Amino acid sequence: NGKVLLTIDDYFEAAKDKLQKQTYEYYASGAEDEITLRENREAFTRWLFRPRVLVGVQHQNVSTSILGDYVSFPVMIAPTAMHKLAHPDGELATAQAAAAMHTIYCLSCLSTTSMELIASAFPGRPRWFQLYVLKDRTFTQQLVRHAEELGFRALVVTVDAPRLGRRWCDVRNGFGLPPHIDLEILGGILRGGHTGESGLAAYFAAQVDDSLSWKDIAWLVSITKLPVIVKGISAGEDAALAVQHGCRGVVVSNHGGRQLDSALSSLECLEDVVNHVHGRCEVFLDGGVRRGSDVFKALALGARAVLIGRPALWGLATRGADGVHHVLHILHEELRQVMALNGCTTIADINRSYLRRAGAYPPQ
Amino acid sequence: NGKVLLTIDDYFEAAKDKLQKQTYEYYASGAEDEITLRENREAFTRWLFRPRVLVGVQHQNVSTSILGDYVSFPVMIAPTAMHKLAHPDGELATAQAAAAMHTIYCLSCLSTTSMELIASAFPGRPRWFQLYVLKDRTFTQQLVRHAEELGFRALVVTVDAPRLGRRWCDVRNGFGLPPHIDLEILGGILRGGHTGESGLAAYFAAQVDDSLSWKDIAWLVSITKLPVIVKGISAGEDAALAVQHGCRGVVVSNHGGRQLDSALSSLECLEDVVNHVHGRCEVFLDGGVRRGSDVFKALALGARAVLIGRPALWGLATRGADGVHHVLHILHEELRQVMALNGCTTIADINRSYLRRAGAYPPQ
Amino acid sequence: NGKVLLTIDDYFEAAKDKLQKQTYEYYASGAEDEITLRENREAFTRWLFRPRVLVGVQHQNVSTSILGDYVSFPVMIAPTAMHKLAHPDGELATAQAAAAMHTIYCLSCLSTTSMELIASAFPGRPRWFQLYVLKDRTFTQQLVRHAEELGFRALVVTVDAPRLGRRWCDVRNGFGLPPHIDLEILGGILRGGHTGESGLAAYFAAQVDDSLSWKDIAWLVSITKLPVIVKGISAGEDAALAVQHGCRGVVVSNHGGRQLDSALSSLECLEDVVNHVHGRCEVFLDGGVRRGSDVFKALALGARAVLIGRPALWGLATRGADGVHHVLHILHEELRQVMALNGCTTIADINRSYLRRAGAYPPQ
Amino acid sequence: NGKVLLTIDDYFEAAKDKLQKQTYEYYASGAEDEITLRENREAFTRWLFRPRVLVGVQHQNVSTSILGDYVSFPVMIAPTAMHKLAHPDGELATAQAAAAMHTIYCLSCLSTTSMELIASAFPGRPRWFQLYVLKDRTFTQQLVRHAEELGFRALVVTVDAPRLGRRWCDVRNGFGLPPHIDLEILGGILRGGHTGESGLAAYFAAQVDDSLSWKDIAWLVSITKLPVIVKGISAGEDAALAVQHGCRGVVVSNHGGRQLDSALSSLECLEDVVNHVHGRCEVFLDGGVRRGSDVFKALALGARAVLIGRPALWGLATRGADGVHHVLHILHEELRQVMALNGCTTIADINRSYLRRAGAYPPQ
Ligand SMILES: Cc1cc2nc3c(=O)[nH]c(=O)nc-3n(C[C@H](O)[C@H](O)[C@H](O)COP(=O)(O)O)c2cc1C
Ligand SMILES: Cc1cc2nc3c(=O)[nH]c(=O)nc-3n(C[C@H](O)[C@H](O)[C@H](O)COP(=O)(O)O)c2cc1C
Ligand SMILES: Cc1cc2nc3c(=O)[nH]c(=O)nc-3n(C[C@H](O)[C@H](O)[C@H](O)COP(=O)(O)O)c2cc1C
Ligand SMILES: Cc1cc2nc3c(=O)[nH]c(=O)nc-3n(C[C@H](O)[C@H](O)[C@H](O)COP(=O)(O)O)c2cc1C
Repeated sequence: NGKVLLTIDDYFEAAKDKLQKQTYEYYASGAEDEITLRENREAFTRWLFRPRVLVGVQHQNVSTSILGDYVSFPVMIAPTAMHKLAHPDGELATAQAAAAMHTIYCLSCLSTTSMELIASAFPGRPRWFQLYVLKDRTFTQQLVRHAEELGFRALVVTVDAPRLGRRWCDVRNGFGLPPHIDLEILGGILRGGHTGESGLAAYFAAQVDDSLSWKDIAWLVSITKLPVIVKGISAGEDAALAVQHGCRGVVVSNHGGRQLDSALSSLECLEDVVNHVHGRCEVFLDGGVRRGSDVFKALALGARAVLIGRPALWGLATRGADGVHHVLHILHEELRQVMALNGCTTIADINRSYLRRAGAYPPQ
Repeated sequence: NGKVLLTIDDYFEAAKDKLQKQTYEYYASGAEDEITLRENREAFTRWLFRPRVLVGVQHQNVSTSILGDYVSFPVMIAPTAMHKLAHPDGELATAQAAAAMHTIYCLSCLSTTSMELIASAFPGRPRWFQLYVLKDRTFTQQLVRHAEELGFRALVVTVDAPRLGRRWCDVRNGFGLPPHIDLEILGGILRGGHTGESGLAAYFAAQVDDSLSWKDIAWLVSITKLPVIVKGISAGEDAALAVQHGCRGVVVSNHGGRQLDSALSSLECLEDVVNHVHGRCEVFLDGGVRRGSDVFKALALGARAVLIGRPALWGLATRGADGVHHVLHILHEELRQVMALNGCTTIADINRSYLRRAGAYPPQ
Repeated sequence: NGKVLLTIDDYFEAAKDKLQKQTYEYYASGAEDEITLRENREAFTRWLFRPRVLVGVQHQNVSTSILGDYVSFPVMIAPTAMHKLAHPDGELATAQAAAAMHTIYCLSCLSTTSMELIASAFPGRPRWFQLYVLKDRTFTQQLVRHAEELGFRALVVTVDAPRLGRRWCDVRNGFGLPPHIDLEILGGILRGGHTGESGLAAYFAAQVDDSLSWKDIAWLVSITKLPVIVKGISAGEDAALAVQHGCRGVVVSNHGGRQLDSALSSLECLEDVVNHVHGRCEVFLDGGVRRGSDVFKALALGARAVLIGRPALWGLATRGADGVHHVLHILHEELRQVMALNGCTTIADINRSYLRRAGAYPPQ
Repeated sequence: NGKVLLTIDDYFEAAKDKLQKQTYEYYASGAEDEITLRENREAFTRWLFRPRVLVGVQHQNVSTSILGDYVSFPVMIAPTAMHKLAHPDGELATAQAAAAMHTIYCLSCLSTTSMELIASAFPGRPRWFQLYVLKDRTFTQQLVRHAEELGFRALVVTVDAPRLGRRWCDVRNGFGLPPHIDLEILGGILRGGHTGESGLAAYFAAQVDDSLSWKDIAWLVSITKLPVIVKGISAGEDAALAVQHGCRGVVVSNHGGRQLDSALSSLECLEDVVNHVHGRCEVFLDGGVRRGSDVFKALALGARAVLIGRPALWGLATRGADGVHHVLHILHEELRQVMALNGCTTIADINRSYLRRAGAYPPQ
């Protein structure tokens, strides 16, 4: 509608206008009462900056490395399902934007675009593959092989979804994919249409293994040379277990508030995880990142990088690859700004001393 | 109205539409400013989950035992008065749903259905009888005998109501029973109609003994072989006294916010009670349970099981026995879900380590 | 309008309807941003009850003594100015209600009824006289003599108003008395009418001494046999000074939020004062008392009794002496109720163990 | 519109009505989500008074000295840009009001009135000059010389703006100066008009040096005899560095929430700064001061004086010099009032013992 798009929230509003109700609600909603969905955002507002001045911020470098790969800034794209619902270009557009911004795109295994297409389109760029461990282990293993062959640089195993969270919108809407869109990686049919039943929930229950346990992680580590990252950690003890089972990274995440409602925000779990990991693997975070200041806060509390889920979808829905690119660009510029005004010139400068708890007395 | 009923709140809305104003307000309201009514709900939101992952949740068992009796899940039906106001099938419908779900129904002594009818309808199912100690002790003793003979498995003595709480709605509405509904256990006439006076308050003042003290509990324990449970405990010291007086259980409860307004929520009293009881009797909780996550939180803080009051009434009003059954079913499914996503497969797995205080720093 | 009047809030609504805007705003408003006005109420909501049960509450005694005088319950009427604005019967009606309820009425020295009339109307009842120390000390001394002769039982010296607080409503309304109403004790003319200037503020500045200090208190104590009570204490240190200067009581008060805005609520000052006084004089509280539960909370934190300001005015405006009487009666019944449901049968039973801080963890 | 103007908020409303939208938004807005803008205000509400009584407040003296210069009360005017947007008389009017109230006006180097005009208009009055260190150091040095020659009494170097904060209003409005208004000190052209680009941001990026560091402060101190004050300090460590680099004062400030969004409020940074400075230089504060009570709170937490930004602009926009004068007068009267009612007669009486944290238990 011609409005200038300056912030992630602007993209959210624009996407809301543009998307079909069913799709919008699928993307935007959280599980049950959406307590965790809200907490993910609120948690960021509970920290405020205590900036330093007069350090000379003319030269800034916001690039970093993630599992050894260069990224232009510590923001990646989280795996989210079914991008063709947002835009006909689907996951290809998202991957293109990530490549252009020199950061990592994590492809969901619920993709509506094939792994081959993604891999061939932007060669040489680091990208990750998100895996649900399926009931069918042979097929699971084929997916791992496939990801290796196609040059994906890491396997992200999502562990917070032995069952799909209850998202009432999807149940009420009878959420499903339209006939012309398919799950190009997992295959099978994900149709909706029955009020009172989420097509995704049914599909998920049929495919994904709810017996998943640490021995499956050990198995995955044993069958691949790719670094394995577990996504969906809240407790420090689980992060320590991940390290012990050979994982190279953990994503502190509650699946964007879509799985266990009333769970702690991911930000509030971060310090505990960082303390348990003790530098033995890389710690990432997703959930509620909407501002450069959010990125700074997560890094100050110990994350190596963050991932964004919905913001990329809002960009994609609004303007395809350009929208995703702009969303990333906005966060990039905001991070530069927030670092400059906090008196940090490199990512390594960011630490806990820049944060204080909002409203706390004495200061914390 | 054809809306899909997915949550307890959906049943609440449906019941609100269906019930007469006077009845709805009698059921829904709390005492005075309804501070405690709200606190009962708020208290649950002050705890969030810190879930564990990768434990393998394919096999779940949410059954437990209560005073030695098997229940399919740790949720019972609290004693609430006058079910025929909600539905012509009254307490019989409620009892039927509890039996079908294999859990305990606690019959209120302000029932509009007789004890015999309840007892004969669903033989072999554990059920409890809630008792107000009446001014007329001979009659009180007869009720106890009667409960024993009819196979009720425990006596629940309500101790938070030496006087009825002030519920302004009932006073304004001149709350009372219509001519065709009677109190089938206590007898007598409970008519309303005078704006400015609650018929129930008058009835209650006439029947119930406000001199009730620990020696009456001792007396009750002495005249029956049934386990005695005191309902309406807030202070740990009182729970310890209950144990000393031979009680086998305590219900941490403030009568659903209908008695002492501005009292602490029951959830916030729970830990103190559990600490004082120290395993010497079973500890239950009611007040504000609306979600499977609420059940989990109460258990994590030490309750053996919880009871629901109003949710059963919303089910009953909306769809009779089927409605109550569905309400129980919803909680059953939600509890399974919240356990699975927290990484618990049995009730015994649930403990304090899964909870953290919302917004607290450092974490508590 | 025929609505049943059940609570103080009902009287507030009724009075609001009935009073002229100027009068209503004069009564209801607080100084500046009304932060303290709101805090006075909020402070009560920050405490919740932890009730005890099974103590036998059939015999209740809510009477107590104040400076040796019997009162039927620990609630007095605070000195408030100009009752004839609320009702033609003015202070006489208020005094009558207090007498009928067997409690103490504290007459404001800004009364629109003479001391003689009040004294002669209800002989033998304990009543207090509130004094502003005036620039004219001779006149001040005459007032003291007069109060003694007329049988007032204590002098309440208000010390939180060396200057009148800024109440923007009064300034905007050009608040003043209509021609047919006079200040019958202090005399002089209090006319308004100029938008941008409060008539009361001008009157006050002319009469009341802003040099008031502890030596004036010593002087007052020296010239009268009546017990001297200082009203308007917030700091424990000042309460200790009051004791040292021979005062027999202190009223923890911020003048109902009408003087120093952004001051702590009186309830939040209470414990500090009680600790400093250490039983050496009686401690009273006013500000925001609207419920029996508020009375209980103040007593649990160490007050001997409380005073109500505006609630009496709402009663007076709505129904004259009957209204004030009903307001007192409501609080009397609510106090009985809240004591019974907390398990207290006498005023002496009330103590800190019945309170916990709302939302605090661990419990406080 | 004839409404009586009694408070700073009244002036805010009046100015909002009077100003062009673009100008109003430029003045009122903060950076990004305006979290810090709101925190600046909220922080004051987190402190409440614990007043003392009976100290005799007939003689009050609210004057103090700032860097040795007498001021009639501890409130100065903060440097704010482009006063001619608010009123044709521009900075001259503001300076006139400050002079009339015997307090310090700090001229912004983004003034739309020349330094000469200001200096010549009100000789003998203490006034300060705010400096941005420019890319052009020669010009910067000329400005310093100029300020010295014209009798400015201190240099205020703003250090929280190596880059301009992102103020979305200005970006959306394409904020700029109209053709008939110029930056009379810095020169150059600050035109707007392009939606999506703030003219000020462009101008700022071109002129102001983002390499500013402590060695530049050392340089400034070395080239002038004027006391140097750094404005925009949040961390105690930076205040200590300021002392070490020869600064005579620090302004705890976040630029009125216009630079780093999500920064701590200035009030919440104050105690840390005061503790680090340890009396070695004077500590000032700005941000959110709107009430006499705010001034008192800042002083109680250790500030020597405060500065007001927007309030002066609201006065200027509404009634020119008279408006600014009245704004200062309001704060002067409110400070006198709040001191009297707290029991303070001089600025030196104000200390931490008069404050308590709102809602904290135990009291802090
Ligand atoms: C619409 C949608 C689909 C998602 N699909 C997946 C998925 O297929 N696999 C997965 O591991 N996470 C999935 N997630 C979770 C994201 O990876 C990520 O954890 C979450 O979106 C982060 O929170 P944010 O949206 O607040 O940034 C999905 C999230 C959304 C919103
Ligand atoms: C309409 C209604 C009637 C009730 N009647 C009784 C009763 O007769 N006896 C009793 O012990 N408790 C009674 N209660 C209290 C319940 O047993 C229980 O403590 C409360 O409802 C739990 O709170 P909840 O409604 O939030 O689940 C009643 C509650 C309601 C809402
Ligand atoms: C309209 C009004 C007039 C008052 N006049 C006086 C007065 O003349 N003298 C005095 O000491 N306090 C006066 N007060 C303060 C009261 O004595 C008392 O401190 C306050 O009203 C208690 O707060 P509450 O109104 O919330 O109960 C007045 C209060 C009000 C509301
Ligand atoms: C419209 C506007 C323009 C400002 N311009 C400047 C400036 O040129 N230089 C500077 O150091 N601070 C500038 N400031 C910041 C003020 O000096 C001051 O820090 C801030 O306004 C204080 O907050 P307050 O407005 O809440 O009182 C400006 C502030 C505003 C609102």
